[in-house]
Amino acid sequence: MERKLRLAIDMDEVLADTIGKFITVYEKRHQTIVKLEDLPGKEFREVLPEDIRQTLRVYINEPGFFRDIPVMEGAYEVVEKLHEKYDLYIVSAAMEFKNSLADKLEWLNEHFPFISWTNIVFCGHKIVDVDIMIDDRIKNFVNFEGRKLLFTSPHNLNIHDYERVNSWQEVADLLL
Amino acid sequence: MERKLRLAIDMDEVLADTIGKFITVYEKRHQTIVKLEDLPGKEFREVLPEDIRQTLRVYINEPGFFRDIPVMEGAYEVVEKLHEKYDLYIVSAAMEFKNSLADKLEWLNEHFPFISWTNIVFCGHKIVDVDIMIDDRIKNFVNFEGRKLLFTSPHNLNIHDYERVNSWQEVADLLL
Repeated sequence: MERKLRLAIDMDEVLADTIGKFITVYEKRHQTIVKLEDLPGKEFREVLPEDIRQTLRVYINEPGFFRDIPVMEGAYEVVEKLHEKYDLYIVSAAMEFKNSLADKLEWLNEHFPFISWTNIVFCGHKIVDVDIMIDDRIKNFVNFEGRKLLFTSPHNLNIHDYERVNSWQEVADLLL
Repeated sequence: MERKLRLAIDMDEVLADTIGKFITVYEKRHQTIVKLEDLPGKEFREVLPEDIRQTLRVYINEPGFFRDIPVMEGAYEVVEKLHEKYDLYIVSAAMEFKNSLADKLEWLNEHFPFISWTNIVFCGHKIVDVDIMIDDRIKNFVNFEGRKLLFTSPHNLNIHDYERVNSWQEVADLLL
């Protein structure tokens, strides 16, 4: 039997709508409305008013922050099918935030229960030995020689030298 | 400049004396003395009396269990030097136990503070793209094509077909 190709899928902004959570948090805690149309080419913290910009890191570090993030549209259906066809791994650069680790694991168990703990990787640098990587951060493509699919997120809209996917439907069209 | 070789180091039974912790726990909680000379070729749970064998998994899952494990003899000094010479990563199959994740990260920050969060990987299957792997479990060498160093632990004493290191001093002799 031919070996299945190994596929690594990122979490924030790919499986999980982390910017959606950011927008909700700043509206609730600071009555600050961030609009998606302000975001292209920028990081979320860059569009926050300067006096509250430092709070983002604090919130991200709070236990529970990553537990209730919405699932990206279409992610469940497509990932479930990819899981059949590929040797699928979830690879998240979670290690910077200690409290995110258990939250992210529980989140995956809730929303993608078919993914085994054996196929989850939390790391810093993504030194994974895979064939295809779906990620919204090109820094994770450095030194990676496999196929790179840049998942569209506002901050990466001005980057043009990678194969791009704009939605989970486009991932399905390419990989299924 | 030549690229540094990438080195992956396991935690339990390699950096951390996890069996030492098991022995202490069973002496304290069950007045059960497990002797190192009972262990060769066996997993720790196999030498426990049958009526308390299932408790091991429960204890491993308790928050804090991995926080106070003793550091293996000689590990600090050798890893500090390896860290200069190699692109060094800590790679632990921690994902099976949700509560171990934060403990293990804090433990590393306490005992090996020179290792950045960027160079820590918690996973299931060790699908890391590295040149050398130091591990006590040969299952982690499956599909790994680099240099494998089997770090001696009681359970692996009957395995003879791998390059073996019996101590951190032997790691230093080979890699420094």
